[in-house]
Amino acid sequence: MTRRGEFRIIQDLFAPLATAPGALALRDDAALVTPSPHHDLVVTTDTVIADVHFRSDDPPDDVARKALRVNLSDLAAKGARPIGILHAITLGAETDDAYLERYARGLSEDLTTFGVALLGGDTTAHRPAAVDGQGAPLTVTITAFGEVPHGRALLRSGAKPGDLVCVSGTIGDAAIGLRALTGALQPLVADHRAYLVRRYRRPEPRLALGLRLRRGATAAADVSDGLCADLGHICDASGVAAEIFWHAIPRSRAVDRRIADDPALRDLVLGGGDDYEIAFTWPADRRQELTAISTETATPITVIGAMRDISGARAKGVTVIGDYGQVIPVAQPGYVHG
Amino acid sequence: MTRRGEFRIIQDLFAPLATAPGALALRDDAALVTPSPHHDLVVTTDTVIADVHFRSDDPPDDVARKALRVNLSDLAAKGARPIGILHAITLGAETDDAYLERYARGLSEDLTTFGVALLGGDTTAHRPAAVDGQGAPLTVTITAFGEVPHGRALLRSGAKPGDLVCVSGTIGDAAIGLRALTGALQPLVADHRAYLVRRYRRPEPRLALGLRLRRGATAAADVSDGLCADLGHICDASGVAAEIFWHAIPRSRAVDRRIADDPALRDLVLGGGDDYEIAFTWPADRRQELTAISTETATPITVIGAMRDISGARAKGVTVIGDYGQVIPVAQPGYVHG
Repeated sequence: MTRRGEFRIIQDLFAPLATAPGALALRDDAALVTPSPHHDLVVTTDTVIADVHFRSDDPPDDVARKALRVNLSDLAAKGARPIGILHAITLGAETDDAYLERYARGLSEDLTTFGVALLGGDTTAHRPAAVDGQGAPLTVTITAFGEVPHGRALLRSGAKPGDLVCVSGTIGDAAIGLRALTGALQPLVADHRAYLVRRYRRPEPRLALGLRLRRGATAAADVSDGLCADLGHICDASGVAAEIFWHAIPRSRAVDRRIADDPALRDLVLGGGDDYEIAFTWPADRRQELTAISTETATPITVIGAMRDISGARAKGVTVIGDYGQVIPVAQPGYVHG
Repeated sequence: MTRRGEFRIIQDLFAPLATAPGALALRDDAALVTPSPHHDLVVTTDTVIADVHFRSDDPPDDVARKALRVNLSDLAAKGARPIGILHAITLGAETDDAYLERYARGLSEDLTTFGVALLGGDTTAHRPAAVDGQGAPLTVTITAFGEVPHGRALLRSGAKPGDLVCVSGTIGDAAIGLRALTGALQPLVADHRAYLVRRYRRPEPRLALGLRLRRGATAAADVSDGLCADLGHICDASGVAAEIFWHAIPRSRAVDRRIADDPALRDLVLGGGDDYEIAFTWPADRRQELTAISTETATPITVIGAMRDISGARAKGVTVIGDYGQVIPVAQPGYVHG
């Protein structure tokens, strides 16, 4: 294995990406962030670990993209405009130069795509593996900074009884894409497989939608732990219950085809996670605005249910209702990353 | 091994520490930070890994303190007032409930001591160890936020020829304390050993000094990689060279006693790292102010040399001069964490 030292990794691979003045060219141990006047800074941090949150054999450029995008997705759910990131990477026992070069290229492209500055970070390495031991895995912790006008961040806590429950995009793709990668699924039509795997490896942070939702959404969260788990967080924080309809949950053709073959995969739609779509609540009397928002932001939006007063709801938290009005048990209440 | 799930860890151990309004009680995936008007936010992130940056058998409360304090030390070197942190922890294969409870207690006490808010974070876990494999290590990445009046952050890049080179506290304690823990040193007098080990495990971020240095220091850095390495960073960023005098470098009695027994330990003073003191440069014509600053901030300050124009210096970067005017080679130019 060939790997340059940490100092050279920073100098050769990461410093060229740190072009913002506040990054101090990564020559300092800290960076400067100046939010616009009358804005709050929104900060979030997420760790991704090889073979927990991504696969060791995922393309390295996609690993960088995912590490970044899961954080941008948190900013999107807050209605924040991304500013920059700090990038802390702990090299795995087997992370080599070739891997790091592809990783840095993916990071670079995505920073440009999303207009986000690399402001600083920390590059560390796990100890080499013991002779017959398994090497410690590559781990990336990105901290992302965004800004919102003062007091205008979308929170999980504002949902009210009667609000519509909405979700962007389609749900379940990534969790089923992961099963396709692990070989736990029947063979798929090639283009379905490629679509699902891509959804697992390259989530799309819904930044334009998040910004637009500031003008109306009562609560929002990104769907990372699983649809029911993340809606459950909104219910907990808002003190309400949610009723959602299975038939209304937006699903890709690839997912519906898999579920037709194996109905148990329904659980991956309800609780699989890794979707990085936005679940939000919206006042019912402003329902007609949703179509315009969808068009403006080029983001599919689907109403999947409504919020209920806890006392009038069938159950605490999230209830999923099937085609015949029956309650669908949620087998796996979402993978709890924490 | 007993360990509650990640969700319970957050709820039981970390959420009670997150009392600031911007933390949203850790019920959201992001936090809000609002710097004071006309202030820049200073951000920094540092990762500590078991058996790389701390020892697996260090007391868990000290591990939390160290993870926090190495970040506060970066803020101190910028002249920033700490505001809050994001805390990303990846549990090692063998991290159990008892460990985490002691860890959280240490974190809690230090947050109070330094007046720092826990704003959010991410709790993840490594996969369990393979049967005969070594478990992946506990890893903590803290991102710290501080503020400085706009444009007033201390940087590495302002040192000028003629400036005095100064350092706080004593140098070399932590690196020699680590050698005492690994058994690589001759037996020590018990109170010397306790002192050195404590300096390794509980660095003291020089926050009061950092704030005061804004009124005069031309450049500053914390000594984490090693005295010569970190002064070298100031030289690189400022385009100057440093000449420092071995006899002037402040050392504890415990360190001097060890060096008397084994002169090779001198390299650990010059390059051992983990000191978390502040190295800074100061205009020579304001030397008399240093005594007052030392008194005001209750921090020992020692002048150890001066900055030189690169063209007039004996060598690029840092030159260490011995008692007879000879140049002391720096064997180990600091542990490069990155």
